Amino acid sequence: MIKRISDEILTNGKAYDNLRHLTKQIGGRLAGSPQMVLAEQWGEKLMKESGADKVIMQECTVPHWVRGGQDKAKVSGGKNLDVVALGNSMGSGKKGVAAPVLLVNSFDELEKKKDEVKGKIVFYNYKFNPTFVQTFRSYGDASQYRGNGPSRASKYGAVAVIVRSMSHSVDNNPHTGATRYVDSFPKIPAVAIGLRDADWLANELQRSSLTVELKTNGHFLDSAIGHNVIGELTGSEFPNEIITVGGHLDSWDNCEGAHDDGAGCVQTVEILRAFKALGYKPKRTIRFVLFANEENGLRGGNEYAEEAKAKNEKHIFALESDAGGFTPRAFGFTMSEEQFQKVLQWRSLIAPYGCSEFNRGGGGADIGPLRRAFPTTALAGLSPDSQRYFDIHHARNDVFENVNKRELELGAVNMAALIYLIDKYGL
Amino acid sequence: MIKRISDEILTNGKAYDNLRHLTKQIGGRLAGSPQMVLAEQWGEKLMKESGADKVIMQECTVPHWVRGGQDKAKVSGGKNLDVVALGNSMGSGKKGVAAPVLLVNSFDELEKKKDEVKGKIVFYNYKFNPTFVQTFRSYGDASQYRGNGPSRASKYGAVAVIVRSMSHSVDNNPHTGATRYVDSFPKIPAVAIGLRDADWLANELQRSSLTVELKTNGHFLDSAIGHNVIGELTGSEFPNEIITVGGHLDSWDNCEGAHDDGAGCVQTVEILRAFKALGYKPKRTIRFVLFANEENGLRGGNEYAEEAKAKNEKHIFALESDAGGFTPRAFGFTMSEEQFQKVLQWRSLIAPYGCSEFNRGGGGADIGPLRRAFPTTALAGLSPDSQRYFDIHHARNDVFENVNKRELELGAVNMAALIYLIDKYGL
Repeated sequence: MIKRISDEILTNGKAYDNLRHLTKQIGGRLAGSPQMVLAEQWGEKLMKESGADKVIMQECTVPHWVRGGQDKAKVSGGKNLDVVALGNSMGSGKKGVAAPVLLVNSFDELEKKKDEVKGKIVFYNYKFNPTFVQTFRSYGDASQYRGNGPSRASKYGAVAVIVRSMSHSVDNNPHTGATRYVDSFPKIPAVAIGLRDADWLANELQRSSLTVELKTNGHFLDSAIGHNVIGELTGSEFPNEIITVGGHLDSWDNCEGAHDDGAGCVQTVEILRAFKALGYKPKRTIRFVLFANEENGLRGGNEYAEEAKAKNEKHIFALESDAGGFTPRAFGFTMSEEQFQKVLQWRSLIAPYGCSEFNRGGGGADIGPLRRAFPTTALAGLSPDSQRYFDIHHARNDVFENVNKRELELGAVNMAALIYLIDKYGL
Repeated sequence: MIKRISDEILTNGKAYDNLRHLTKQIGGRLAGSPQMVLAEQWGEKLMKESGADKVIMQECTVPHWVRGGQDKAKVSGGKNLDVVALGNSMGSGKKGVAAPVLLVNSFDELEKKKDEVKGKIVFYNYKFNPTFVQTFRSYGDASQYRGNGPSRASKYGAVAVIVRSMSHSVDNNPHTGATRYVDSFPKIPAVAIGLRDADWLANELQRSSLTVELKTNGHFLDSAIGHNVIGELTGSEFPNEIITVGGHLDSWDNCEGAHDDGAGCVQTVEILRAFKALGYKPKRTIRFVLFANEENGLRGGNEYAEEAKAKNEKHIFALESDAGGFTPRAFGFTMSEEQFQKVLQWRSLIAPYGCSEFNRGGGGADIGPLRRAFPTTALAGLSPDSQRYFDIHHARNDVFENVNKRELELGAVNMAALIYLIDKYGL
């Protein structure tokens, strides 16, 4: 059966064409945007066409942050820096913010220089660590500067923040992503800067002081209504036991969201399509979910868990693909030891298709709330090869052209194989 | 030590910059071409700069095939097809060849239609099999049409051959590669065609007959003198035990040869550089070899083995990287069962860096002759992820831009780790 699934997806797969439509016809689709609505309509139609027994549009309230215009940063000498405002950040106002730049390479250095911070633009030049083989470790290490950097600098009187992009890329594209303000300090403007400009700026600052003029326009509009798009195949033997598989439909506004997470969405739908094409009738109920608002609120994932809890549903397993449409290499599992030992027995069945490593720990942002609601729900996340992910993550080059058709399809093959085994044998 | 190697290569690696020079400053470098000479000079200089104890330019005679101009194919209706003459193929002459096209989907179909072949251009539309997860299996399956197709059609009187490119690509780039004429039949012109044009042509031929006018100009010039570029670190304890690691310096002329096999060359040099940077003094003699003429003659690999045999050298192990500069996933070993069991004990040391699979069977075209000369020489080949390789293999998009810096570096890390272990513990 796994071989049949693989042959079907690798021969007749629609994931790549679906991704082309999502990225090229709809594009970036941040929560609250008109593209969010178009993407939801696309998802609903696609779930029906792909053979879902029923399609549910699960409503949730989502934040509506807008960039509000082009982000700009100009150095006193005249050079323009390639920057992008951090998601959820507050704009500088029309006049902009002009101030001397204070370079710090870490939070430790910020603390040492805290008396120099007032009135400055703090430039966090923390490097994405090249020595971690798995790039998600570098991201976990560096992303605190994006998340906490603005408020930690604001605490000491900084007027704005520039953060080195979290990337190993060889280009100069800046990478956005959500920041988190602490309410007790002023919400100062915050941008990410491309790596070449970061290196240039750091070098210049070694030699002399520099002023940067920053203009950003980010702000929140009224909250909007978004939806989790849920396609369901109703179980033939145990319809009350629910298996969830999904990705998130929203993306940042500065890119097409092809890998993050258009890939996870079209892989999710592809599993549904392949099961129907093969005439597979699941024993358990399988829900194929395109989650809303992962990037800057997680309202979709929370709503899904809350409604499941309110209805006292029985969720046995949830799988997410939100690490890019690259060659699948591993699954990470959050489950009991007994369940993990059972799953480990299937590794040799799935390994020939790519996921030869089954690791402990893993899941996904959107399915996390489900396990917090039901501590017995087992979770898993697809781990594709991670080397190229942070070249494109939250940057303007996260576009369809940077997704490889077969790598994308193989992700769906491995996910479908795992879902099939859990449906057939339970957990 | 392996962690130190990894940190050195991922932090200070020069492989990517070296590959930029080889691809952008020198470019395609088919045996016998002026670029071959430039590449050899570059290799010699780089081996010295990277700290080789000695650098040997090992001479060999290489064939000198030239494309001789632009390859053209025009359909009777006026459409131009995107084609590239197969390597080593003979040109059509200035007048070209115009003839009706006979579509066959396989050699079986050729045999069934053999009475229709005379005077025709045979179009082999054999599909690259999508159901093999490892794309090298699809290549092994389909490449017989490139290698044997021209003479098998010529046997029945065909005047030329068009071969569907061996690729899963989504573009229309045609993929060249060597063909092998059988001397007893006329050496007819032969081209590869891009996948979109192949599908178009096949569709049109279902509906009506078509004539194609083919112009190619391939021919052989006088043989030339090429060189294997060999850098050596002389062993401190067992200088007579030789370990070889290498890739091939030549490439097809229609591309930059970035993945095939610029990647293998710069990875090879990177291991030398890293060993020197870390002050590692090998026990055994390690030879870093950039082989000549892999693509259309294998004269470099043959010369290396012949000279080793003539000198009665003791070659314990040889490793080749010639499957692209993609994320490393596996090593394939050709060695005794006892040796394989020894090597298997090291798998857990190397797995964290990428090569988590150690398989039986593997090596490389250039090191193959060494094992034929010395049946006790153990061989291994690096197996990177194979999904993207045949998107670019022998096509105009095998360029530097399609190589990822970290994927390339990680290949060198895994190779260096294996060489280190074999040097330290023997085989």
